[in-house]
Amino acid sequence: MDNFSYQSPTRYVFGKGVENQTGKLVNEIGCKKIMLVYGRGSAVKSGLIDRVKASLADAGIKFTELSGICPNPTDDKVREGIDICRAENVDGLLAVGGGSVIDTAKAIAAGTLYNGDFWDFYCGKAIVKDALPIGVVLTIPAAGSEGSGNSVITNSALKQKISIRTDYALRPKFAVMNPELTLTLPMSQTAAGIADMMAHIMERYFSPTEGVETTDRLCEGLLKAIITEGRTLVENPDNYDARANIMWSGTLAHNGICGCGRREEWSAHGLEHVLSALYDVTHGAGLAVAFPAWMTYMTHKNPSKIAQFGRRVFDVDIENDREAAMEGIKRLREFFKYLSLPLTLGDLGITDPDFGKFTSDFHRDKGTPWGNYYPLYPSDTEIIYRLMQ
Amino acid sequence: MDNFSYQSPTRYVFGKGVENQTGKLVNEIGCKKIMLVYGRGSAVKSGLIDRVKASLADAGIKFTELSGICPNPTDDKVREGIDICRAENVDGLLAVGGGSVIDTAKAIAAGTLYNGDFWDFYCGKAIVKDALPIGVVLTIPAAGSEGSGNSVITNSALKQKISIRTDYALRPKFAVMNPELTLTLPMSQTAAGIADMMAHIMERYFSPTEGVETTDRLCEGLLKAIITEGRTLVENPDNYDARANIMWSGTLAHNGICGCGRREEWSAHGLEHVLSALYDVTHGAGLAVAFPAWMTYMTHKNPSKIAQFGRRVFDVDIENDREAAMEGIKRLREFFKYLSLPLTLGDLGITDPDFGKFTSDFHRDKGTPWGNYYPLYPSDTEIIYRLMQ
Repeated sequence: MDNFSYQSPTRYVFGKGVENQTGKLVNEIGCKKIMLVYGRGSAVKSGLIDRVKASLADAGIKFTELSGICPNPTDDKVREGIDICRAENVDGLLAVGGGSVIDTAKAIAAGTLYNGDFWDFYCGKAIVKDALPIGVVLTIPAAGSEGSGNSVITNSALKQKISIRTDYALRPKFAVMNPELTLTLPMSQTAAGIADMMAHIMERYFSPTEGVETTDRLCEGLLKAIITEGRTLVENPDNYDARANIMWSGTLAHNGICGCGRREEWSAHGLEHVLSALYDVTHGAGLAVAFPAWMTYMTHKNPSKIAQFGRRVFDVDIENDREAAMEGIKRLREFFKYLSLPLTLGDLGITDPDFGKFTSDFHRDKGTPWGNYYPLYPSDTEIIYRLMQ
Repeated sequence: MDNFSYQSPTRYVFGKGVENQTGKLVNEIGCKKIMLVYGRGSAVKSGLIDRVKASLADAGIKFTELSGICPNPTDDKVREGIDICRAENVDGLLAVGGGSVIDTAKAIAAGTLYNGDFWDFYCGKAIVKDALPIGVVLTIPAAGSEGSGNSVITNSALKQKISIRTDYALRPKFAVMNPELTLTLPMSQTAAGIADMMAHIMERYFSPTEGVETTDRLCEGLLKAIITEGRTLVENPDNYDARANIMWSGTLAHNGICGCGRREEWSAHGLEHVLSALYDVTHGAGLAVAFPAWMTYMTHKNPSKIAQFGRRVFDVDIENDREAAMEGIKRLREFFKYLSLPLTLGDLGITDPDFGKFTSDFHRDKGTPWGNYYPLYPSDTEIIYRLMQ
């Protein structure tokens, strides 16, 4: 096990009706005038935004608004938000939505206090040291941004989708999590969220670090719970407990508890970010295509942990490592298929793949070589993209 | 799943050599003059206290000292500590040791700021709302106090051992955790610690709350890791990674992450607290006797979760719930025996058990009935104590 430092100070307020505590929670973190950030309609249509505004009003919190955040959120909305925060002397942000909304709020929170262009943080020119405090009302369990110090933003002009990670500065102060809000999510969105949270765990699980039984077992346990509850939701999308377990698993998948003391991987995320920057595919759907392809290539390069995944997560009973690994990947893809997730680039609507461009974009964003479990050079990366056909 | 609120803001600094960061960490939580609290010798003999003092001196932190804390720590040391803290205007505490030292420091931290006798918190007359900040350098993985808001103190005159739990006030600000410090722990102490951390998980696992697959799987995963690494340490006590996994598991067992959204149990702890208040037995050793006895009785009252424990933690392949439960308990006791833990009251040196007194003391401390998984009345409780023979 490697040395580590870990602190996850986010307060999670979880369960039925908890969105009505939002105003009180904003008060407790000391904010007086916040910016409410949300998406393109469903939070408005469902009445959630009105309930949150009522809760803020009850607590005497003033607010301004930034709405219309899209999936794969872009730099233009961040700049718009920073301008408003500065003009209106906002002292905190409340994100009501899923990962795209939360990640936009985080970029605004950091950018408002920074004397320069916020993209400096994403292109590696500057490090986030300070940010306005952020609260979250979560509506889509997937990205895990409600419990992480991370943010992913796409630069439209550069066609680059970049992720940053901070230890503390961008961790939300609180996350309000009512699984009832997810009962009406369409299955395609539920399924993409499940693939996303599984990928967050697997990027930590497929580590070269030895002697990490505790975090291995945490990862495997969470994956097993997600698979069980994901199957339940295909049959019965109204099952509150399954929604609740999926929502809480999505947070634990990405708040860092699965990565303590181990080097992490993140190749499959990098492979997918290239696709969603070029084609605007749903991140979780892209991961359902990218991760099994990466695992298949790894089975030929370093099968041991892929085999352990098959045996411990999908109960594969095969002694040979490569065979156990391949059977595990098969069962993972069968699970994704059961969720009606895409399995190939074609399923994602990418009918004209330019494998050379995908490969060069990946290494432009990530560097060469990239990866801890097995370092990828362009010749490896191109094969993995071809395995997605 | 039940509604919950969860916040674990403790910063964990984990790995080889991290005790040398102690002074810097005390500085970061804003303390200028602390009280250093430790035990009866091993932390001094090993040179740890000297290294911690050097780290404090390097960081310009002044300190006073309270040493000689014993296992099953008592109220007299707490009162001594409170008097010193008040007289010397101490603004924080640093506990160097295991659960007894940390729990004493917590009681002092709360008592110093309280206008009355600190025992009010333990006997239920008052609630801890504020406390001096606490840092920890952990030397014994067992109690999980480094990551919890809990404290257990024995009142010598009353022969009562009482546990309190706070949401935030008593959670340490930081915990310095170097598994190397545990390489020289005798196997008896290692084993008692393992029983203690397993019991912390199992008190949360044996819940009547339905629909908690995520936390069920977390509990089972941690238990499996502890069993694997516990077996490794019997063969090879010098295995750093096994020591590290045990240490980190002990924290996760009790920092609340295993209990989110579920009612908890705590009967076995209550049964054991009676024994250690009367006979001063090691807490973990007492739990190795008490927990299987409680589980055996539950197998006859409500076998479902005991059976799930057998199947998922010890891979029992039996369809009938009662048989699966009993086989799981048998394997748990075999594991405890492998660790050379006691299995009966006689093994604990209790040769003259007064079952009537045990039972009345249990219900005096806990109330009647006690228990969520299955409520215990005195007639139930006495049978469980008799099953410990």
